Amino acid sequence: MTIDEKALFLHKEWNGKLETTPKAPVKTREDLAIAYTPGVAEPCRKIAKDPEDAYVYTMKANTIAVVSDGSAVLGLGNIGPYAAMPVMEGKCVLFKEFGGVNAVPICLDTQDTDEIVKAVTYLAPAFGGINLEDISAPRCFEIEQRLNDALPIPVFHDDQHGTAIVVLAGTINALQVVGKEKEACRVAINGAGSAGIAIARLLLSYGFTDIVLCNRRGILAKGDPALNSAQQKIAADTNPRNLSGSLADALKGADIFIGVSGPNTVTAEMAASMNHDAILFAMANPIPEIMPDVAKAAGARVVGTGRSDFPNQVNNVIAFPGIFKGALEGRASRITEEMKLAAAKAIAGLVPKEQLCEDFILPEPFDPRIAQAVSQAVKAHIPNED
Amino acid sequence: MTIDEKALFLHKEWNGKLETTPKAPVKTREDLAIAYTPGVAEPCRKIAKDPEDAYVYTMKANTIAVVSDGSAVLGLGNIGPYAAMPVMEGKCVLFKEFGGVNAVPICLDTQDTDEIVKAVTYLAPAFGGINLEDISAPRCFEIEQRLNDALPIPVFHDDQHGTAIVVLAGTINALQVVGKEKEACRVAINGAGSAGIAIARLLLSYGFTDIVLCNRRGILAKGDPALNSAQQKIAADTNPRNLSGSLADALKGADIFIGVSGPNTVTAEMAASMNHDAILFAMANPIPEIMPDVAKAAGARVVGTGRSDFPNQVNNVIAFPGIFKGALEGRASRITEEMKLAAAKAIAGLVPKEQLCEDFILPEPFDPRIAQAVSQAVKAHIPNED
Repeated sequence: MTIDEKALFLHKEWNGKLETTPKAPVKTREDLAIAYTPGVAEPCRKIAKDPEDAYVYTMKANTIAVVSDGSAVLGLGNIGPYAAMPVMEGKCVLFKEFGGVNAVPICLDTQDTDEIVKAVTYLAPAFGGINLEDISAPRCFEIEQRLNDALPIPVFHDDQHGTAIVVLAGTINALQVVGKEKEACRVAINGAGSAGIAIARLLLSYGFTDIVLCNRRGILAKGDPALNSAQQKIAADTNPRNLSGSLADALKGADIFIGVSGPNTVTAEMAASMNHDAILFAMANPIPEIMPDVAKAAGARVVGTGRSDFPNQVNNVIAFPGIFKGALEGRASRITEEMKLAAAKAIAGLVPKEQLCEDFILPEPFDPRIAQAVSQAVKAHIPNED
Repeated sequence: MTIDEKALFLHKEWNGKLETTPKAPVKTREDLAIAYTPGVAEPCRKIAKDPEDAYVYTMKANTIAVVSDGSAVLGLGNIGPYAAMPVMEGKCVLFKEFGGVNAVPICLDTQDTDEIVKAVTYLAPAFGGINLEDISAPRCFEIEQRLNDALPIPVFHDDQHGTAIVVLAGTINALQVVGKEKEACRVAINGAGSAGIAIARLLLSYGFTDIVLCNRRGILAKGDPALNSAQQKIAADTNPRNLSGSLADALKGADIFIGVSGPNTVTAEMAASMNHDAILFAMANPIPEIMPDVAKAAGARVVGTGRSDFPNQVNNVIAFPGIFKGALEGRASRITEEMKLAAAKAIAGLVPKEQLCEDFILPEPFDPRIAQAVSQAVKAHIPNED
């Protein structure tokens, strides 16, 4: 059987990849009286006096909701909330297995921004955090922003920030391999959706200064009225040399290419036009912007993709379980830029210096140290709100 | 330690009575490729073509949401969504342990009827059913009705129907014990909130004809403008002899008393004024409308309460796990009156005829046959919608 056939067969066997499991026993009358009435009234009273006690007496402390509206699922597009469920369940499985975080899939039957914001605000009391997933741009920016403003718990759109964190981690190590400094590097990003913009923002926060974003029509131009508001903002904050033109123009002399776009959008000639010791993250799935062997033949030094069958896989599972584990343990009210930077550095630091090389710039997803390292870094950078 | 002390201690130890547990392994790269990308795209595509396939490939098939707004929690009143969480988690534990049904607690941070209806409608895709819990009357009636109209999955307010089903089960057996026929019985119900009205409705469906409801101000009068709309409707459908007056007046000559009201609202004199071989369900918690020994001394024959330390405990856990188990297995789109009646009869039937007596009219909550018997009865009475 192929992977696809196995996936279909096993999804039917499982009939849901997740279940709810009681931690409280209810085998005796006393058990019932403790876990349910009348005993349960005691923790209720405590929380009624002080809602913060929800973190002591309920699953809020270690449970998040994985929320999607099914508008931008994997490479499948707008397939709606029912068809998005297998992905959200899978994400919840990864949260638990890799980070020890309980996660509940919530697929919303609305794609209206206001309604999504209200629905998530209403269902928030049971959860310690909200992971937004597979919501199309530019709605995802507004939804994340408004929810973070409205809620006292962290709201994190993994398609944006999870990807950005892993890319930054890989970039930190790739720069070590090629012996370049971030301040001297030119970066070209193809794809000005949620991931591309978030990557640009995090690279700016880290200290990169020369970043150029492209979309299908070429380099984003400051003030272009055809851009959505998130693109206009990032256009204003990037492209310091005021380049214009195509992706090919953006790549000329660039040290780093980051692709969150489509298959085969970068030719061998374009790769060859980059600076010496070029670094490429070609993350279109399943067919990258440029195949690693083609990029290497064109002179690239480090190549990462989204695929597990090539070296340097950029896989969000390296980041998101540890990020929420740390945020929940530290009772963070948001996931700040500093926490993201700390997570990226922690991930980069997991590749031992003596093993760091062209083909090993990111830890393996199954490295058992990851969630702990990421969560500790995130926790250590939670701002003090007192 | 008292039960209350133990409950507080253990709720802190548990830090949530429920967790999410993966059924799909993610220990290898192939596991990941099957449970998550790229394999997960296959079941997504199937569901995108036919949303009914969500029941094949996702947890929707065997998972419900337990939804509250915290407006009427146990005897604690309107303590809000955060403080309601321990109860909803407990309910979810019972669903899984007693019925094998996965259940997710959702405590909504709004008490606006329209907003609750919208929020639950939006989050429904992930779930095969909605159990409403601890929502105050009369909002609960409208919320349940509108959600049942809007959603293709069953919506069931357990405080209403779960209670009604168990009371009817007990009543069926109590009539056997005292040798009376339902058609000849007068019933007085004290408490015209969600449970009292639902009990009256189900008793009418079962074939009782002479039911009188009371609230704090006495017998509900037809056309009384002080009544809410649900009370006006039930007043129109009950009280065939057009009684007026107090609870004491309603009890004179009654064969059955059903209390979902407050402590000590029925005196020994009132119990003594009932018909011979009276049946009383005094379910106020923790202090019943009348203590069983007082009622017995006043001539009552069968007495049930909500407490586990007296005989004949009316405990919803006898009903709700099996009801949703049957509704989910039979893919019911609603829980109809016929399904409720079938559940009550199935519960009554679990008390062996030779053991049926004054002090044994309802099966024990831990009777392992209950969920199966109830679910089979419910499943067998799902209307054919073809």
